[in-house]
Amino acid sequence: MSDYTQILLEKDGPVATITLNRPEKMNAFTRVMMTEIIDALDNTDADDDVRAVIVTGSGDRAFCAGADLTPDDGSRPFSSETEVADLSDEIVRDGGGRLTLRMFQSTKPLIGACNGVAVGVGATMQLPMDIRLASDNAKYGFVFARRGIVPEACSSWFLPRLVGPQQALEWCMTGRVFDAEEALGGGLIRSIHPIPDLMDVARGLAHEIADNTSAISVAMTRAMLWRLPSGDHPMMAHRVDSRSIYMLSRGKDAREGVASFLEKREPNYPGKVSQDMPEFYPWWNEPEYE
Amino acid sequence: MSDYTQILLEKDGPVATITLNRPEKMNAFTRVMMTEIIDALDNTDADDDVRAVIVTGSGDRAFCAGADLTPDDGSRPFSSETEVADLSDEIVRDGGGRLTLRMFQSTKPLIGACNGVAVGVGATMQLPMDIRLASDNAKYGFVFARRGIVPEACSSWFLPRLVGPQQALEWCMTGRVFDAEEALGGGLIRSIHPIPDLMDVARGLAHEIADNTSAISVAMTRAMLWRLPSGDHPMMAHRVDSRSIYMLSRGKDAREGVASFLEKREPNYPGKVSQDMPEFYPWWNEPEYE
Amino acid sequence: MSDYTQILLEKDGPVATITLNRPEKMNAFTRVMMTEIIDALDNTDADDDVRAVIVTGSGDRAFCAGADLTPDDGSRPFSSETEVADLSDEIVRDGGGRLTLRMFQSTKPLIGACNGVAVGVGATMQLPMDIRLASDNAKYGFVFARRGIVPEACSSWFLPRLVGPQQALEWCMTGRVFDAEEALGGGLIRSIHPIPDLMDVARGLAHEIADNTSAISVAMTRAMLWRLPSGDHPMMAHRVDSRSIYMLSRGKDAREGVASFLEKREPNYPGKVSQDMPEFYPWWNEPEYE
Repeated sequence: MSDYTQILLEKDGPVATITLNRPEKMNAFTRVMMTEIIDALDNTDADDDVRAVIVTGSGDRAFCAGADLTPDDGSRPFSSETEVADLSDEIVRDGGGRLTLRMFQSTKPLIGACNGVAVGVGATMQLPMDIRLASDNAKYGFVFARRGIVPEACSSWFLPRLVGPQQALEWCMTGRVFDAEEALGGGLIRSIHPIPDLMDVARGLAHEIADNTSAISVAMTRAMLWRLPSGDHPMMAHRVDSRSIYMLSRGKDAREGVASFLEKREPNYPGKVSQDMPEFYPWWNEPEYE
Repeated sequence: MSDYTQILLEKDGPVATITLNRPEKMNAFTRVMMTEIIDALDNTDADDDVRAVIVTGSGDRAFCAGADLTPDDGSRPFSSETEVADLSDEIVRDGGGRLTLRMFQSTKPLIGACNGVAVGVGATMQLPMDIRLASDNAKYGFVFARRGIVPEACSSWFLPRLVGPQQALEWCMTGRVFDAEEALGGGLIRSIHPIPDLMDVARGLAHEIADNTSAISVAMTRAMLWRLPSGDHPMMAHRVDSRSIYMLSRGKDAREGVASFLEKREPNYPGKVSQDMPEFYPWWNEPEYE
Repeated sequence: MSDYTQILLEKDGPVATITLNRPEKMNAFTRVMMTEIIDALDNTDADDDVRAVIVTGSGDRAFCAGADLTPDDGSRPFSSETEVADLSDEIVRDGGGRLTLRMFQSTKPLIGACNGVAVGVGATMQLPMDIRLASDNAKYGFVFARRGIVPEACSSWFLPRLVGPQQALEWCMTGRVFDAEEALGGGLIRSIHPIPDLMDVARGLAHEIADNTSAISVAMTRAMLWRLPSGDHPMMAHRVDSRSIYMLSRGKDAREGVASFLEKREPNYPGKVSQDMPEFYPWWNEPEYE
């Protein structure tokens, strides 16, 4: 399906699966892996047949054991060996953040299926996913303070939103490695499953989305729910959802949605994300790194 | 008490109750209902005897089954039949959002008593309420993606704040209808009650507020807690609460509050929301729809 | 150790403990106490040997019973007796907010060990702490609406972030006093402990941080997780964490962090908060009160 060397991209009907695939290295993160996942997300966004993307790790030990600290292939995971004159230089951009910012822009739902150890960027890359599942042997660690660095991959934006400041601070200030139960109690993950069931549950959620909903609606919903809760007033949400309701309620997916509902049958939405998003989408200007 | 045709507004001491009242239509939402609820909130805000407002549905099947998709009365709930030249036109404003923005501005606490099915705008109109209760037969659905549209009524602002991004995304991207237990587990509602007890619990909370607190304090608190948590620094909250403490601690309600506390008796606050709010209230400029 | 009259500041290895110390007054808050806690935080920030700060109350009845409403020492806790011409005057600044804003700026983790009654400012001063523990006899009350005033100490910024709007509104609009179980269920506190164990658990968390992590990393993490989750996009987090990773990964703490990890030994980080923070820290301009 591709020339990827450190991941796999597979498709089965409406469900794409990205597998971090360096099992002998516990799927440790490299710059090559970053580039390949970003490329795979370009692929799933461009493919109208893909309605949801599962991200998991190869093997039954690790989702991703963090940045590869002993790269023998010249690909240091975050930041270059080269000294730079200007900290706004592209070269100082954290690789985990380049990945999570690309995930943030996905038009397809991202479902994390964490099948084992997930520390460092292995934990933070899951934060911009929409739904996080774990196997019962999963372990998480925001271990940055134990390595003399800081939480990366934009996790200071994502983690407190997902689990609240108190839990985010405890995990990041202790750098503790914790199990799936603690992750569930803290609100990081949605549910825990025996490892043989993990992918089935992920696929079930992917199909619950794919079989029942409009792809246009889901792409809009994903952008709206991640981007609009900010600010001290709901007016921006009102502006976006008023325009969306006005335009989409006149569209072919709404016609099919109401018809299938009234006729009590399965829907078959014709809309395609590649061509049918409302003309005001995106309503934001994506900020530059500077 | 009024000429309302699709709701009831009743008052019993300090507690007002707004009842969505189209039981034969499962209290489905129309533009008439929107206008009447907004009018009722104008009434409860203007009436200093009202200290809390309960919102519930008529009958024991539904709170509100969403927008009426088969209007025989010419009142399409969201967006007009008329095509407009300009998307900023008033006519494209979502009706659910007009309602939730009015709720957002209420000076009185809003307590939702969800007595059955609540889907679409029936679910999203509950989000700007302060406390959400459910009967054990309640069902919720953010079903928009199953109709080819998007979450409306400013729910992209409210829902992730209330339940976090992960739960909000799962509910809105699947469009699933779910029961009261799932709503409680996700943090959407405060508690579940047998339907015969639901209104008693709601009234109990309303009286807990009315019997013990200053109306001025509660109106200020409501605005502060909804509007001030935004931004990257607590300084704006410090500006507002410093001025509030300075002014209110010199006022008649603070005198009564401290006196009744020291004398261990029930308080009787003289302050009225209609006339005694601090002069800097509102401290914000309400944004325009544009 | 100091000339404090209403608090104690003690140090034991890397752990400092601030004890509110007016047990005969249930540790009620005064302007003197505010000044002394702020001074103690200046001390713990300046002392590189301090890695975490526990805040607790003297005795086994109260953490802090709120503002002292019957001051016989001329030190009214919030706002002056003096009338002022201008509400932006320094003199109207809420004392609780002066304290919580200072806590917000702490470079050391703050762990609350709530050993009894915590009402009014006794509750709100715990909100900017990173981790909140409670004894099983703890009681909390955001009682402001029962005194004719409003939630202070920037709690309208902190509380909804910590527990969500629904729980924050219920507690602040009823003004109810509630027990440790309700505080735990609502997400206000991390855990409940028998009073003889409370300080041991707090010290255990302090040591989990001190024994395993870089002080630089923790100071950066604390600022990042409190300040960066705002806004509608993670790009600001990406800017800060990219620069941080670039600079810190070249630093002596990262060298020690990776070396101790690979050598499977206890780390001994040389970095000092007083001198080794990245040059772009602080990356924000602290806003003025106005």
